[in-house]
Amino acid sequence: MTPDDLSGFFVDPATLRRDEHILLDYSFECVGDPREAAAHLCSEQSTAQWRRIGVDEDFRPRFAAKVLDLQVEGRLDGFSYPIPASTAPTGEVRACRVRIAHPHANFGPRIPNLLSAVCGEGPFFCPGIPILKLLDIHFPDAYLSQFEGPKFGIDGLRERLQAYDRPIFFGVIKPNIGLPPEPFCEAGYQSWLGGLDIAKDDEMLADPDWSPLAERTALLGAARQRAERETGTPKIYLANITDEVDRLLELHDTAVANGANALLLNALPVGLSAARMVRRHTQVPLIAHFPFIAAFSRLEHYGVHARVMTKLQRLAGFDAIIMPGFGPRMFTPEEEVMQCVDACLADMGPIRRSLPVPGGSDWAGTLAGVHARIGSADFGFVPGRGVFGHPHGPRGGAASVRQAWDAIARGIPLAEHARHHPELQAALDAFGAKG
Amino acid sequence: MTPDDLSGFFVDPATLRRDEHILLDYSFECVGDPREAAAHLCSEQSTAQWRRIGVDEDFRPRFAAKVLDLQVEGRLDGFSYPIPASTAPTGEVRACRVRIAHPHANFGPRIPNLLSAVCGEGPFFCPGIPILKLLDIHFPDAYLSQFEGPKFGIDGLRERLQAYDRPIFFGVIKPNIGLPPEPFCEAGYQSWLGGLDIAKDDEMLADPDWSPLAERTALLGAARQRAERETGTPKIYLANITDEVDRLLELHDTAVANGANALLLNALPVGLSAARMVRRHTQVPLIAHFPFIAAFSRLEHYGVHARVMTKLQRLAGFDAIIMPGFGPRMFTPEEEVMQCVDACLADMGPIRRSLPVPGGSDWAGTLAGVHARIGSADFGFVPGRGVFGHPHGPRGGAASVRQAWDAIARGIPLAEHARHHPELQAALDAFGAKG
Repeated sequence: MTPDDLSGFFVDPATLRRDEHILLDYSFECVGDPREAAAHLCSEQSTAQWRRIGVDEDFRPRFAAKVLDLQVEGRLDGFSYPIPASTAPTGEVRACRVRIAHPHANFGPRIPNLLSAVCGEGPFFCPGIPILKLLDIHFPDAYLSQFEGPKFGIDGLRERLQAYDRPIFFGVIKPNIGLPPEPFCEAGYQSWLGGLDIAKDDEMLADPDWSPLAERTALLGAARQRAERETGTPKIYLANITDEVDRLLELHDTAVANGANALLLNALPVGLSAARMVRRHTQVPLIAHFPFIAAFSRLEHYGVHARVMTKLQRLAGFDAIIMPGFGPRMFTPEEEVMQCVDACLADMGPIRRSLPVPGGSDWAGTLAGVHARIGSADFGFVPGRGVFGHPHGPRGGAASVRQAWDAIARGIPLAEHARHHPELQAALDAFGAKG
Repeated sequence: MTPDDLSGFFVDPATLRRDEHILLDYSFECVGDPREAAAHLCSEQSTAQWRRIGVDEDFRPRFAAKVLDLQVEGRLDGFSYPIPASTAPTGEVRACRVRIAHPHANFGPRIPNLLSAVCGEGPFFCPGIPILKLLDIHFPDAYLSQFEGPKFGIDGLRERLQAYDRPIFFGVIKPNIGLPPEPFCEAGYQSWLGGLDIAKDDEMLADPDWSPLAERTALLGAARQRAERETGTPKIYLANITDEVDRLLELHDTAVANGANALLLNALPVGLSAARMVRRHTQVPLIAHFPFIAAFSRLEHYGVHARVMTKLQRLAGFDAIIMPGFGPRMFTPEEEVMQCVDACLADMGPIRRSLPVPGGSDWAGTLAGVHARIGSADFGFVPGRGVFGHPHGPRGGAASVRQAWDAIARGIPLAEHARHHPELQAALDAFGAKG
């Protein structure tokens, strides 16, 4: 690039029309001039060729992504991750952070086109930049207002469950694979009686021959209503309708007609846009599960940060977002879990808040830690085996979780509360060594 | 896991019912016993809890993913990529390869559910395995036969274009962002006259306000037919309908009615399942572009290998698959490009072959190298600026590429052929230093 080519990809923040741009924070490692690398990063994701041959024109003022801020963080001994010698640029490596303003009229309020721009060929095949991570994304209200966002959000979920000032208690019905609908239903039913708000299908269980969704939702829809009558409390059966995109609306209708009163989608496997399609159609809350995301979010310096995917799931319209939670089991630093929680809860203009559901090997004994880290009760708690592998069965497992919350809410040490609550005591005995 | 728990996740290859399983090749880095890590890898992606509490049952024989082969490749000084201390298992690290047989009846012929199983929470949140890559996937014909695959495939594309025994010549109309439909159309028209088979929208150009798809396809559809009449040769206008999933079929119908006779989808951004939905509906060839894939495929030891995504795009029904091609510009080792090319061309039971289109900064001078590496003419060649940034304009740019092919086919050195072909000479002069 010539100096003039380069300057067309920088903008003074004071003159930027903020409502016309989304802001993108990337970290990258480059060889060569960081200013030129940052300009290429803008060029490749927007106006890579900004004029026709032989025509005096420049599409950059209106259409180019532009650098708002560039920080060179330092020199590295090499790229953070080995790059095959045949493709590695040679020279001194610098670690940089950049904030880029991208004109959203280039693609409009369309998730697939947004993804293509911000984590597509442009950013990931940028000259001199083999290592890059999209760290964060910020939308102006003018862009957000073109999305529906969650239909219910945290407040709507709480109202449906009549559950305020406490976490929402989920449980993943187990065994997740292989259990026929009738015993599967019985396990869900028992867990509601024990105190779960939401009994859910595992993200791996959808509509297989051995547990057809229509049959399973009919059983669990009826059992859910029975549990509501018996406990006098609203309950949710969260059915997983993850399937081919052209079946989703039909499965939504079947499951809802059968009494499933919330639906699970594996957000990335079906696609965020398919999730948005279901959101436009849905009558019930939609819950996201996180398969596939770790494949591009786990490494510190490469890929796409998990909080970006959390924001996009919220934008797509999920009322609750299940995400990798705390503890070494989920390979996610506490700071990152909190960033994803914040992405659910922070102000996002006209878009409702999603319920964050950080999960992973939870049971009664891990509830206090999750609550303390989040610092409020605005979260979902989602044990699997902690409820359904409890020695007393799912009813006892669910009870142990509710007892743990009672202890926390009343400031009573768990071990003390367990003395008069055998389900909690059994959980401590069975899972305590692991906790 | 107890020794008995563990043995339930291993199977003797001689007794495996091959037609009931997909095979998954993973590399992983683990701490602890590699056999236990491999068993967990199976357990977490299938029957993580294989019996109810208090019931004598075992879902593993029918439903568990199982280890077919495990190779411990060696000890490492640490994980290949740094893992945050708070989440890293401590102990000696071993690099392993494993082949796992996963019963496909667990999820059926559904791409989202397949993805959830093979690169979802199970594999990427497996105890002791923070570093993992899905390297390859193999399907039995019994599974493949439940997919439509490409409607046309290479042979159908060649027949439509009446183009045999040579590469298919694509070109990405540039400037890609900001150019209004009329001059955009003129550029495409000129490129067809110059010899392109397929003039295409950039993957970043879809249906923005400043170039509505309906208006653009009407112009280019008509220009395509005019170019066919004038050249006496079939031509393709490849329109990008990447958009929200619930608009795809409508955009297909609009574009096809207007004369677009092939359609581009950004496969991962719309989702592979949405692509399959379009495949079930389409009247024209479907072409995939590769945004987002590099975010999880580039690093050697983490994520999902690009050839897996190529196979899945073929399975979803793409007739041609644009992929990162040769040369350092695309950060993809030659071996990996070839593995993706092979994934398009190799036998896949009842699924037609897709045309591989390895791309990246191509022009007339890079054609011989691509041809030599692939070793046949069964590929698509897709310059952007190499045609539309050519000093003589798009017509000259397209001619330069066709002239390069003539020279290759006749065994004439490029420089020699250029002496009597000014477009080729101009390309060598303009792009040669970079080539």
